[in-house]
Amino acid sequence: MEQSSLAGKEVAAAFVSFNSRYGAAIALHIQQGVNPTEWVTEQAPAPQDVHWPFFSSSFMKRWICKLAVVVACIALTILFLIPVVIVQGLTHLDQLETWFPFLKGVLNLTFISQVITGYLPSLILQLFLSFVPPIMIMFSSIQGHISLSNIEKSACSKVWWFTVWNIFFANALSGTALYHVQVFLEPKKIPQVLAEGVPAQASFFIAYVVTSGWTSISSELFRMFPLICSFISRLCCHNASDDLEVPSIPYHSEIPRVIFSVLLGITYFFLAPLILPFLLVYYCLGYIIYRNQLLNVYAPKFETGGKFWPIVHNSTIFSLLLMHVIAIGIFGLKKLPLASSLVIPLPVLTLLFNEYCRKRFLPIFEAYPTECLVKKDREDQNDATMAEFYEKLVTAYQDPALMPVQYSGSSDGRTSPLLHAANV
Amino acid sequence: MEQSSLAGKEVAAAFVSFNSRYGAAIALHIQQGVNPTEWVTEQAPAPQDVHWPFFSSSFMKRWICKLAVVVACIALTILFLIPVVIVQGLTHLDQLETWFPFLKGVLNLTFISQVITGYLPSLILQLFLSFVPPIMIMFSSIQGHISLSNIEKSACSKVWWFTVWNIFFANALSGTALYHVQVFLEPKKIPQVLAEGVPAQASFFIAYVVTSGWTSISSELFRMFPLICSFISRLCCHNASDDLEVPSIPYHSEIPRVIFSVLLGITYFFLAPLILPFLLVYYCLGYIIYRNQLLNVYAPKFETGGKFWPIVHNSTIFSLLLMHVIAIGIFGLKKLPLASSLVIPLPVLTLLFNEYCRKRFLPIFEAYPTECLVKKDREDQNDATMAEFYEKLVTAYQDPALMPVQYSGSSDGRTSPLLHAANV
Repeated sequence: MEQSSLAGKEVAAAFVSFNSRYGAAIALHIQQGVNPTEWVTEQAPAPQDVHWPFFSSSFMKRWICKLAVVVACIALTILFLIPVVIVQGLTHLDQLETWFPFLKGVLNLTFISQVITGYLPSLILQLFLSFVPPIMIMFSSIQGHISLSNIEKSACSKVWWFTVWNIFFANALSGTALYHVQVFLEPKKIPQVLAEGVPAQASFFIAYVVTSGWTSISSELFRMFPLICSFISRLCCHNASDDLEVPSIPYHSEIPRVIFSVLLGITYFFLAPLILPFLLVYYCLGYIIYRNQLLNVYAPKFETGGKFWPIVHNSTIFSLLLMHVIAIGIFGLKKLPLASSLVIPLPVLTLLFNEYCRKRFLPIFEAYPTECLVKKDREDQNDATMAEFYEKLVTAYQDPALMPVQYSGSSDGRTSPLLHAANV
Repeated sequence: MEQSSLAGKEVAAAFVSFNSRYGAAIALHIQQGVNPTEWVTEQAPAPQDVHWPFFSSSFMKRWICKLAVVVACIALTILFLIPVVIVQGLTHLDQLETWFPFLKGVLNLTFISQVITGYLPSLILQLFLSFVPPIMIMFSSIQGHISLSNIEKSACSKVWWFTVWNIFFANALSGTALYHVQVFLEPKKIPQVLAEGVPAQASFFIAYVVTSGWTSISSELFRMFPLICSFISRLCCHNASDDLEVPSIPYHSEIPRVIFSVLLGITYFFLAPLILPFLLVYYCLGYIIYRNQLLNVYAPKFETGGKFWPIVHNSTIFSLLLMHVIAIGIFGLKKLPLASSLVIPLPVLTLLFNEYCRKRFLPIFEAYPTECLVKKDREDQNDATMAEFYEKLVTAYQDPALMPVQYSGSSDGRTSPLLHAANV
């Protein structure tokens, strides 16, 4: 079923429907043409999940976009060190006093100085961090994905690595950007540097769990930001429709936040066990609040199919490895070479476990097995509603470029690339 | 078609034949069962190519065997540094004189000392190296492969990495084993260390090309070693059959040798251009001799299907990257920071090219595209000899455990694991 042909131009991409799930899987998993970059098959997203701009892009265009996004992410990560350095400056009050001498009287009050050193740094960091998920979504959307769910998944892992680098490492190592890069060029020194830097920042990260964790998860309940946005938009545009759209949970900003708490728990439980009760409160709050939000507030925008789980798995493995490296460094610093070398099997075992999971469980996230597909297909054969389903399927995917012109009045540039990019 | 069932025991593995290539590809590339480790599909090797011991092994057994082989390869690589260090000692004649004072008179002769410093080190190295391919074949055969061709492919890349590490790096850096490991733990110092060590060994590697390259490729023509072996075996066992078996080319020892010369050419062409004429002679000799050997001496034991090419591609990319790193180090040593930083885009471009090749060409080495499969299937449909082919297929795969007992008199332990390992 060719999707789009307009004014003699043919779009080099199409949705193809199959009589059975098994047939679709065959077309999906076996390379079709001789040139693997010419004839690319992908699973079609759900109709409301399609991201049209890259629908008909060539392999090369998508590949180059992906490379550009990787470069942009690295640039953003490096640029973001500037606010992090400013935040680190706030924890050194004496520096602040030299910059702003008129604050001296205020800063000498115990309460004010406690607020500034304890809460302010992570609040400022939080403010800057709140810009990151939208930027990452933007990056992922120009990366060549054809579905919104894949964009969100890609943004989720981008935000996670960004958080690890710019919150954990930048704060734990608390030096200049150049210094960090040099440490990671000398892997031998990493355990030592981490063992020196990470325990020193324990109080910062406990405060981070309280301010960022507790606050953000509680504010999640009130949804202040969407409320304010909606209020402002109503004030400005009086013609806005009165019916509220049901929101969907922003996985790309929530999941990295939750798994970052796992990272803090795993890396700090033996350095500063005081972090554990705070994390316990965080997770209890999180369970109650997210349960309520998922059941009563959010409507799922797409079926994730559990595809976010590998991100959680990978980040947990990374946290465990980081904990082992820090342990090796700490025992090294305390002159306990035996303890240090007894830790070495742990990362090896963790990596082996990860490798086993990759073989045993990862294939299930990538493709459905024949056994399930054929079973489902057989169930479908006896299903009377299938004819109706196929009828609906024909009109399910509506290319925005083919919509009636008066309908696409609110087009935001999404319609144009589809027909111009037909260069395959 | 279940292959083997004997005395009530069922073997947990079978050869399955399909009516079409396309059908076989579907079964091969789509995960069959829910548990990907329980129901593993692999392309059946040609009948004479089957390696029976791992035919019915479980996924876990093969995985553990693979891990054990990785550990064994690392151990072998480290142990092999001992002969390398001895060879390096030979190039320092003064040391040899202190060990064996009676040699002083002989060593002072120019000719003898030239032979010892020029030829002897690489000859001894060559002697030790000749044990490596058989050892690697042994390692690969216990790694869990079910076909001899895969064993040879796996051994080929093992021998290649072994050669790079123990010939190139161990000689170029010419230090102790511990020193090497430390260098690779400090990536920042790698260019500098390589730039210091690699040019100093230019004369050794030119001699290596002459002794190892020219000699081995010329001796290939005479096949002295198989001749001597055959002569001895005839002397010892008079009942040996008189008809000579047609030999097959040992890819796992020949390919690494040829691509190691590529590595030497790429890394030394700007340090010691004198190596190029020697390499040119080597390749001309190689072309003439291998052409003769392939056409007139060797009979192919299996169809490679070009599957050795990715090893050659990867090693060429590695050689290029190594050359870039050495160039960066050399320009750094010569205090030319501009030249050094102008080289940096080169490895990035090489990696991008490699990435593009992986996307564009590697899938063809892993699976045949539908286009070709369906075309071939249609040709087969009109082929009258197909019925005969299917008839032959039924008896093509003869499990050695099911052979008549008197036939398997020369069994070498290959028959036993098949039935005992049925633990899936």
